[in-house]
Amino acid sequence: MRTFSIIGKRIPKPDAIPKATGQIIYGHDVKVPRMLYGKILRSPLPHARILHIDTSRAERLPGVKAVITAKDLPPRRFGYGRDRTPLKGDKVRRCGDEVAAVAAIDEDIAEEALELIRVEYDPLPAVFDPQAALQPGAPLIHEDRQSNLFRHQEYVHGEPDRALEEADVIVEDEFDLGYVQPAPLETSFCLAAFDASGKLTIWSTTQIPFLLQKDLSEALGIPGRDIRVIQTAIGGSFGRGLDMYSFEPICVWLARKAGRPVRLAFTRQEEFAVSEARQSMRIWARAGAMRDGRLWVRDAKVLLDNGAYVSWGTVTTLVLMETIGSLYRVPHARVVYDSVYTNNPITGAVRGFGNPQGTFVVEVQMDRLAEAIGMDPLEFRLRNANRPFEETPQGIKITTCGLTECLEEAARRIGWSEKRAAPARHGVIARGVGIAATMNVGGGARIYRSDGCGCIVKVDDFGRVTVLTGATEIGQGSDVVVVQIVAEELGIRPEEITIVNDDTAVTPWDVGVHASRTTFIAGNAALRAARQVKAQILETAEELLGASAAELELRDGYVRIRETPEQRIPFDKVVRARHFRQGGQVIIGHGWYDPHNEMLGPDGKGNISATYGFGAQAVEVEVDVETGKVRPLRVVSAHDVGRAINPMYVEGQIEGGTVMGLGYALSEHLQVHEGRVLNLTPFDYRMPTIMDAPPIETVIIETDDPEGPFGAKGVGEMGTNPTAAAVANAIYNAIGVRINSLPITPEKVLRALRERSS
Amino acid sequence: MRTFSIIGKRIPKPDAIPKATGQIIYGHDVKVPRMLYGKILRSPLPHARILHIDTSRAERLPGVKAVITAKDLPPRRFGYGRDRTPLKGDKVRRCGDEVAAVAAIDEDIAEEALELIRVEYDPLPAVFDPQAALQPGAPLIHEDRQSNLFRHQEYVHGEPDRALEEADVIVEDEFDLGYVQPAPLETSFCLAAFDASGKLTIWSTTQIPFLLQKDLSEALGIPGRDIRVIQTAIGGSFGRGLDMYSFEPICVWLARKAGRPVRLAFTRQEEFAVSEARQSMRIWARAGAMRDGRLWVRDAKVLLDNGAYVSWGTVTTLVLMETIGSLYRVPHARVVYDSVYTNNPITGAVRGFGNPQGTFVVEVQMDRLAEAIGMDPLEFRLRNANRPFEETPQGIKITTCGLTECLEEAARRIGWSEKRAAPARHGVIARGVGIAATMNVGGGARIYRSDGCGCIVKVDDFGRVTVLTGATEIGQGSDVVVVQIVAEELGIRPEEITIVNDDTAVTPWDVGVHASRTTFIAGNAALRAARQVKAQILETAEELLGASAAELELRDGYVRIRETPEQRIPFDKVVRARHFRQGGQVIIGHGWYDPHNEMLGPDGKGNISATYGFGAQAVEVEVDVETGKVRPLRVVSAHDVGRAINPMYVEGQIEGGTVMGLGYALSEHLQVHEGRVLNLTPFDYRMPTIMDAPPIETVIIETDDPEGPFGAKGVGEMGTNPTAAAVANAIYNAIGVRINSLPITPEKVLRALRERSS
Repeated sequence: MRTFSIIGKRIPKPDAIPKATGQIIYGHDVKVPRMLYGKILRSPLPHARILHIDTSRAERLPGVKAVITAKDLPPRRFGYGRDRTPLKGDKVRRCGDEVAAVAAIDEDIAEEALELIRVEYDPLPAVFDPQAALQPGAPLIHEDRQSNLFRHQEYVHGEPDRALEEADVIVEDEFDLGYVQPAPLETSFCLAAFDASGKLTIWSTTQIPFLLQKDLSEALGIPGRDIRVIQTAIGGSFGRGLDMYSFEPICVWLARKAGRPVRLAFTRQEEFAVSEARQSMRIWARAGAMRDGRLWVRDAKVLLDNGAYVSWGTVTTLVLMETIGSLYRVPHARVVYDSVYTNNPITGAVRGFGNPQGTFVVEVQMDRLAEAIGMDPLEFRLRNANRPFEETPQGIKITTCGLTECLEEAARRIGWSEKRAAPARHGVIARGVGIAATMNVGGGARIYRSDGCGCIVKVDDFGRVTVLTGATEIGQGSDVVVVQIVAEELGIRPEEITIVNDDTAVTPWDVGVHASRTTFIAGNAALRAARQVKAQILETAEELLGASAAELELRDGYVRIRETPEQRIPFDKVVRARHFRQGGQVIIGHGWYDPHNEMLGPDGKGNISATYGFGAQAVEVEVDVETGKVRPLRVVSAHDVGRAINPMYVEGQIEGGTVMGLGYALSEHLQVHEGRVLNLTPFDYRMPTIMDAPPIETVIIETDDPEGPFGAKGVGEMGTNPTAAAVANAIYNAIGVRINSLPITPEKVLRALRERSS
Repeated sequence: MRTFSIIGKRIPKPDAIPKATGQIIYGHDVKVPRMLYGKILRSPLPHARILHIDTSRAERLPGVKAVITAKDLPPRRFGYGRDRTPLKGDKVRRCGDEVAAVAAIDEDIAEEALELIRVEYDPLPAVFDPQAALQPGAPLIHEDRQSNLFRHQEYVHGEPDRALEEADVIVEDEFDLGYVQPAPLETSFCLAAFDASGKLTIWSTTQIPFLLQKDLSEALGIPGRDIRVIQTAIGGSFGRGLDMYSFEPICVWLARKAGRPVRLAFTRQEEFAVSEARQSMRIWARAGAMRDGRLWVRDAKVLLDNGAYVSWGTVTTLVLMETIGSLYRVPHARVVYDSVYTNNPITGAVRGFGNPQGTFVVEVQMDRLAEAIGMDPLEFRLRNANRPFEETPQGIKITTCGLTECLEEAARRIGWSEKRAAPARHGVIARGVGIAATMNVGGGARIYRSDGCGCIVKVDDFGRVTVLTGATEIGQGSDVVVVQIVAEELGIRPEEITIVNDDTAVTPWDVGVHASRTTFIAGNAALRAARQVKAQILETAEELLGASAAELELRDGYVRIRETPEQRIPFDKVVRARHFRQGGQVIIGHGWYDPHNEMLGPDGKGNISATYGFGAQAVEVEVDVETGKVRPLRVVSAHDVGRAINPMYVEGQIEGGTVMGLGYALSEHLQVHEGRVLNLTPFDYRMPTIMDAPPIETVIIETDDPEGPFGAKGVGEMGTNPTAAAVANAIYNAIGVRINSLPITPEKVLRALRERSS
């Protein structure tokens, strides 16, 4: 068995110290000469015609350098649905829609200028319920479309109608999953500057620097090659940066009009009021099983509320569909979904991307089916768990799969058999345990024509290795993963590696940080580049050590003869020996990796990822039946990650994901009333703090994926997916009521208890 | 014959607009958070023992964050002669020697702190004359050395003693060549910052980012791999940045002690007082010829004043030796030189690097020999001119050589035959013409173990090409050269190329900007990288166009079939076609070029460069015999540059070099009295301004060098080399007196005229 020196070590991230000491320069910290401050005037109404905009008073305010409205911008639409312009000229379709923007020498003047802009609106009837939005006669959000239906799609495998008849038991539920936001600590930001030759540099907290280049180009008619995206340091992004939103082209256009760099950053209130939310969904779902424990069928109808405009977030349905169609072996399945325009807030990508919703449905109903056939829910899950190297009816080619081990380990550690059998009750406090599993893409997800990543590795005369990778760090720890992979391959210490990945003009392409893909994709690209470097090192070391490459290994900073390791030369010495001689060479390698996954066909089938991650969470909760308050006591989160390149960051991803899942389960909720967000602070929004986080025990199951770099698969999103279901199942175990609406607030618990007793 | 689309075009530099509009960020403009201001306390004495330094009052001054003296620094020496520490602890050896340094929150406080430092000196006898410094009993500059002689070397080819006897005529002269400075408009600068993990980033106006990394490492004991050098934008450097000087490690150590970034920038006065000068030289030279016009022998004895410490500038003697040994065919030659320590200002690299001095000697004596045998000086030169593809006795392998064409063209255009034969005289104004030639390394100069350069080229989906090259731009225009080479090879427009070359952590290695090497070396590296890119483009285009690579060409932004050019695909479309498909790839290429030149042997022989540039300047001057004032009326400067990649920048280099040569000839002079520089402003130093520059007619002779990128050779320094000799020769033609001391001031002219008439 191969032993590793760097893989599997708990090595700090390159940005750990700068972040911990405050040295790092976040987007909000960036200042460039002559920079102006941009602000956006937004619609107070959810749906209205714009009759007139008068910016003349704002323009006259001293210190104001540019005021723009829709008429200043090229008439180009952008976004996944090509359904919006950065500034709205004809009508507004949501509270917060952008109608004008200003750039001024400071933020106060910019704010004051906004107040001087007069907009005359003619209010229109609005629609906030997606079902109502589909009724004939409903107000049309986009008048150039026939209806508010953005997309209807059906996925089927097997024969679900027949299967529903065949099944020994059927459960049926309606789920109501509310809005949550990614809510990073740093609010949305960009800074745009044109140089004198008309080329644009944009500093951004994007997760998709290369696609942002394309999106800005298409939205503004600036050639893509004239746009350079510099990604500033990011603490956490959670999907927020996966689309271009209106503020980015607005910022660019302010900079163009003002002829000076413009910075645009949201206030915290703005962030909650207008940045994108996880899709609110209503799901009607049925599931059937056989008495012998075979899961037999699933059937779901999904209504997805896009809000006023459609982003990449609308394809969360694909993920949801996969969870319903392929998490556990299910011979028959159908998912029908409608994705609908309303005058509600816009939605977008949030960690998990449809999977938390799908997993909630699947895993609540797994519990319900087990109960219906009188089987232990764990046993029912194990009976139907996905197995390694099998293809699901959906065309998902599972390779390594540790689902069974994850379920068993999570259950064992939470004390499943004892606790579930006899839920504790002390006065008004009831305790229970629940379990839920997850499957998540772990080897890319082909939703764009390229799912690849490029990497260049160069070595200087001192043995410092620079890795230029397209894959960016958004706080998830991918930098340390890439560094460890290169360090392992080259047998050097991670601190000898410098990673450069913040500038589209410098680094090779990457599709972006999404779908838990960076470890697998960027890791494989880095490994390929490092192998080229290694080959060059070995070529020179062969001469120096008088041994063939096959006899040599790179380890502990040396090239050495494997059998006689005292015969060795320092890595940096080999580098210099190769460079400083007649016909010398410096060392450069490059690698490219695009996995052999597929885009889904129109039937929703295909192998979207090169591998899949699996996990299971077991949760113990305490429910106060008098107040309805649910307190998670402990979470065990076991995940098959292929191999943990850095267990500390795998744990970090799982823990962070779990806390995010707990927020989704119990407290986080963007309260929207008639299209207007009511809770505009983290306190009102009720993001969990460290005080809300129970002990989380992480378990790493290693399955050594054949295609992953050193066997690794992705883990970024998995921790978030099963938590809400595990919590709901634990509540049921504790107090015997099922709450299918998220978040599970004390009010809902009390209402459910009341309903049961009445 | 090959036709070019981009090579040979007068295309602006990428940094032209930013520089012209003031958008560029020079070193002095860089600001980083928490930055402090560093200042250096310098010795007022040329030679003294340091008895005591009291920094206590400075340390107590509010706002002072660090005070350092020699005892704070590791006991490491640096520099070409390993003869100095950044701060001097035992004694000072020149006016301006560094004895202490402070970092404070602003410059005023830093200045005030310097005044609070008390240094007790014990003055020592000093020596300012290099000849006196060699006498027994002279004060020793470095007491650990036996004498003030740094290096004695002799170069011989043929049999010079016999040849001096054989020669029909012999001329003998003593030359006295004073100090000049590179004097860039931006004074010396660096900014040092340690990150929290102890890694150093230094922003610098260096010309040798990768060697600075090494020099700082050795001087301070910081591992080279922990040092990142960012070269800030440079307007012009002219050799100033070819060595690390004391202020750079001082700045770094201030940053380390203060725990904050420290910026250190010279005042203009400091720049003149303590930054390095071109070597002052005294040269005794003899030359002999045969009556039939054969140049027969040269014999020179050179005394080079290093000043108090030795830099790379001391190897200017190698260049001087080559000029004396190989400019024109000379069967016998000897150069003996002593390079000597004195208490004078330090000397270093300045454009031409020994060649202006050597060329002055050679070309004045060529005129004198021609006169002695009664031959036209032009004819004498043509008779002895180097020829293409011949090896000189020194081992210099000349490839292309347009010396004859340069001489003929320069002479023709200045009106040589008429004007020289009958110099004009109008009252007190005498006119004359002079000519001089130059040979300069044009294909690298191996003075370090690697003379190579690395380059990476990547292409994004929009067809933007990024060139990551080790070769930096110091105002000379190398960026445009590299860009044009890549653009030509890829058939795209230069504005589609982004060049990245400012960061040692990002770009591959380059030895630095010196020896007019960048066009040839970095150009060849870029061409190799571009060829890899082209091969990838062609591979995909073959499929798309159904033609073999041999039938295709890249031109005007298209890949097209050569014979049927209407069958074509846009460059960027091929790039995307290669990327966005099953098994797609992004395009990355890399190249490395290290020429087949040699380090000189101990005998001074060897082929130091892969090719050589040649040139000739003809000058017409006006001499006011009453005031002694010399006014250049016109310069014709003809240069064999192999091929002019961008004629505009070739002309720019020649024009700039010529004006620098005119300054050397007529006005620039660092006046040093007892080791102290007296003239501390550009006005007193008498740098030529645009008002002093005569019309300069540049003539580009193209010889298509077989090894050069698209046939190009270097041109950076050539324009400076022959000017002083051409001016001196023209003065002689005008008024019949020879002045062998530079600069040729009115006082010297009047004195020479007086001497002649007495």
